[in-house]
Amino acid sequence: MFVDLNCDLGESFGTYQKGNDKEILNYVTSANIACGFHAGDPSTMRETVKMALEKGVALGAHPGLPDLIGFGRRNMDISPQEAYDIVLYQIGALHAFAHAEGGSLRHVKPHGALYNMAAKNPELAVAIAEAVFKADPGLILFGLAGSELVKAGEKLGLPTAHEVFADRSYQSDGTLTPRKQANALLTNDEESVQQIIRMVKEGVVRSVQGDDVKVQADTICIHGDGLHALEFARNIRSALATEGIEVRARLSSMYVEG
Amino acid sequence: MFVDLNCDLGESFGTYQKGNDKEILNYVTSANIACGFHAGDPSTMRETVKMALEKGVALGAHPGLPDLIGFGRRNMDISPQEAYDIVLYQIGALHAFAHAEGGSLRHVKPHGALYNMAAKNPELAVAIAEAVFKADPGLILFGLAGSELVKAGEKLGLPTAHEVFADRSYQSDGTLTPRKQANALLTNDEESVQQIIRMVKEGVVRSVQGDDVKVQADTICIHGDGLHALEFARNIRSALATEGIEVRARLSSMYVEG
Amino acid sequence: MFVDLNCDLGESFGTYQKGNDKEILNYVTSANIACGFHAGDPSTMRETVKMALEKGVALGAHPGLPDLIGFGRRNMDISPQEAYDIVLYQIGALHAFAHAEGGSLRHVKPHGALYNMAAKNPELAVAIAEAVFKADPGLILFGLAGSELVKAGEKLGLPTAHEVFADRSYQSDGTLTPRKQANALLTNDEESVQQIIRMVKEGVVRSVQGDDVKVQADTICIHGDGLHALEFARNIRSALATEGIEVRARLSSMYVEG
Amino acid sequence: MFVDLNCDLGESFGTYQKGNDKEILNYVTSANIACGFHAGDPSTMRETVKMALEKGVALGAHPGLPDLIGFGRRNMDISPQEAYDIVLYQIGALHAFAHAEGGSLRHVKPHGALYNMAAKNPELAVAIAEAVFKADPGLILFGLAGSELVKAGEKLGLPTAHEVFADRSYQSDGTLTPRKQANALLTNDEESVQQIIRMVKEGVVRSVQGDDVKVQADTICIHGDGLHALEFARNIRSALATEGIEVRARLSSMYVEG
Repeated sequence: MFVDLNCDLGESFGTYQKGNDKEILNYVTSANIACGFHAGDPSTMRETVKMALEKGVALGAHPGLPDLIGFGRRNMDISPQEAYDIVLYQIGALHAFAHAEGGSLRHVKPHGALYNMAAKNPELAVAIAEAVFKADPGLILFGLAGSELVKAGEKLGLPTAHEVFADRSYQSDGTLTPRKQANALLTNDEESVQQIIRMVKEGVVRSVQGDDVKVQADTICIHGDGLHALEFARNIRSALATEGIEVRARLSSMYVEG
Repeated sequence: MFVDLNCDLGESFGTYQKGNDKEILNYVTSANIACGFHAGDPSTMRETVKMALEKGVALGAHPGLPDLIGFGRRNMDISPQEAYDIVLYQIGALHAFAHAEGGSLRHVKPHGALYNMAAKNPELAVAIAEAVFKADPGLILFGLAGSELVKAGEKLGLPTAHEVFADRSYQSDGTLTPRKQANALLTNDEESVQQIIRMVKEGVVRSVQGDDVKVQADTICIHGDGLHALEFARNIRSALATEGIEVRARLSSMYVEG
Repeated sequence: MFVDLNCDLGESFGTYQKGNDKEILNYVTSANIACGFHAGDPSTMRETVKMALEKGVALGAHPGLPDLIGFGRRNMDISPQEAYDIVLYQIGALHAFAHAEGGSLRHVKPHGALYNMAAKNPELAVAIAEAVFKADPGLILFGLAGSELVKAGEKLGLPTAHEVFADRSYQSDGTLTPRKQANALLTNDEESVQQIIRMVKEGVVRSVQGDDVKVQADTICIHGDGLHALEFARNIRSALATEGIEVRARLSSMYVEG
Repeated sequence: MFVDLNCDLGESFGTYQKGNDKEILNYVTSANIACGFHAGDPSTMRETVKMALEKGVALGAHPGLPDLIGFGRRNMDISPQEAYDIVLYQIGALHAFAHAEGGSLRHVKPHGALYNMAAKNPELAVAIAEAVFKADPGLILFGLAGSELVKAGEKLGLPTAHEVFADRSYQSDGTLTPRKQANALLTNDEESVQQIIRMVKEGVVRSVQGDDVKVQADTICIHGDGLHALEFARNIRSALATEGIEVRARLSSMYVEG
């Protein structure tokens, strides 16, 4: 039994710093690296790729909406074609840094509003999956567990990873509680850890409504920019180890090496 | 005897149209495609790549400074590291579209102020050449004939192309007359054509000071956005044919195909 | 009986040209000038303000969403506070140019998706109206005839103008036919002119469903960037003159002059 | 004897936080507020204006180059006309927030590379001074003590403030030691305080070459984003009090209030 632990990284921009990338890389196995649209810039991308490679963490593109001021978290009414184009562009940009540093991309995880819209909107989901497929059919597509995005990827023959969240609560329909709601975030570490362990071992999560909901936990998202993000990362690694759950990224993509 | 004919393309942005890309592609053999920094956007890049491939025109990245409002023509005091990063980013982004459409990149030509700064500044030149090399050592680096950029590329072992301009006048030191000067542009077609023929056949250009200056003409830049750009393109193709000079792009890079 | 004729202007950006601003200014009485978010840039704003003042055309701010690539036409899920902030920012920026050129702002008309969202969403409408009011309570708020935006302005005590469109068809509920639908645009000039005349004289418009719908026509939007935009502008001016309908902007705001 | 203490503020952007604005406002008398080009965004501008007004700190616009990724610190080859346009635009935008919150702008201080270029380049200096003058001839123009910018302002009849720096070392020609040099920054608080006291009381500064150089100290720039910025601010306030030097902003501008 194993699970992947992923984190959004490379979210600094110019002189603006965000996250504890260097430290959190010690605890995760997949890095979702911002590609310059919602966060990140070319120099940050290079540095983040390099750090992740040094730590043996799998590289992933984390493409977002062209909304730096909103950190890619505001829904935008983009067309499927535009979604395809911005995702392909960003994967390509990050690929160049991965390639230049002697590595390769292993996965793609859309960011923020793009991720959420693609979870529910089949047309956007298909467009994004196609962009990933066109970039490299060996890339693993990360999407919300059970989402339209994962389904679109599977239909195309892409390897996919159903993603679960350590610090978010779930609704009985399997979706995340929207951030605007008071109980969207789990603030108790112990509670988060137990939710994760159950998702990985039993494939279920207790919803805020009190139901046990089926969920496939291929990869767990943890956050790197909170005040005690590192402590939480250590806790979750320790708990997973105690439960005998191995933490590792899945196999490499075929990109370039093809 | 042969020469390559290149043109800057894909310079539209969002709803803003620029150039006669579809038509000019009938006359050139290398397309320098804007990558979203000084011009271009992901959708325009995809469309331009597709059109160029349909016409059998070689694909090149045309990376520029992050200055959309100034169209990348205003010098910016970027560091060599920043130059490396923005060039690699933009090559990667365009590569993804080339790859997705079944093609591959053949060359890289920096745009505007980045091109001009790299012609004179050896540190910037080396940084840009390294970015190209890291992306793919088979990419042909286009630079001003005799410039630091071309020298840096040659030193790294990159294939290079010395570029000359059909519609620009030259100084006795081999540099282009700065755009700010009155006689920077050749406005007479016949004059432009004769300048080109001489550069290709004899390897010299008559400077505005009246000297014959040595110049290596591997690739000729023509512009696609003037009112009679198409007419001029036809004229130059016709004149080159009359002189028995073949027009074709050089061999493909090794990118991806490795 | 009189009506105002308005046009979106100053939509060029950097080296990208859009519209026939200089010519269309001969036919309209209110200029909605882009403020740098969805279109326009500081230099274009200065030039457009100057041209409009020379022609005696009333100056208006035309604030849009921060989406240059989408020309402000893609809905974005911004909060009312963000709407307030971006509208106030843009009004202020344009005001500075109006003031510097010896003029003053007379109206504000949100652009594209911001305009459409504010037509239906009361919270966004109130936020935008408040931004206009805070900038200057004498500014005339232009909004879709009968929209939430106009209502919000009236509630705050702002002067308002119900806007109608010369080249758009209407639904029986008084809204515009969405651009995505085939019959959204009136392509027949004669039809457009008759629609306008009826809206101004009778206060009704024939919907695509065939109903006569009440509509208040304080100001008519015409477009400046189509191929025969100027011809259409002449036609409508001529038809309005024939009908004895005076064309003029409403009184000035109190901004600065306060 | 009095002096003004100013600080660059409102440099957060979207979700990116920078500085300790709320705290540093307790120690300074003039706030230079970023206007969205090199830093800042509409929402941050509104919040910063509000905080400064609550603390009775004078409001100033801090316009920068359109280079968010470089934080406005990279020289760009903009024309005087472009400098005029971007400065006027940014002043206007900030003015709107000042006006909406019941305040008014008192000064303008260009940021970073724009400030440095305007210190030496008379044409840029004149263009910027004209933008300030056109916005409001009562605005105080802040510039490097003895710089071309201050001279241009004085020539136009603008009130000006010669600015000195608490944490920067000086050359014998009165210019700041470039940031790239090792001794550009004073890292010893006591040394900084003594430099300030001498500049205010005696009108001289000891250069790194060991000369006493004349300098007019109307306003002192302190920084708000270092780790011990607040401690240093307290120290300098305390030292100025001990020396009997009053700390206050100069009189208000005539903007709007006309």
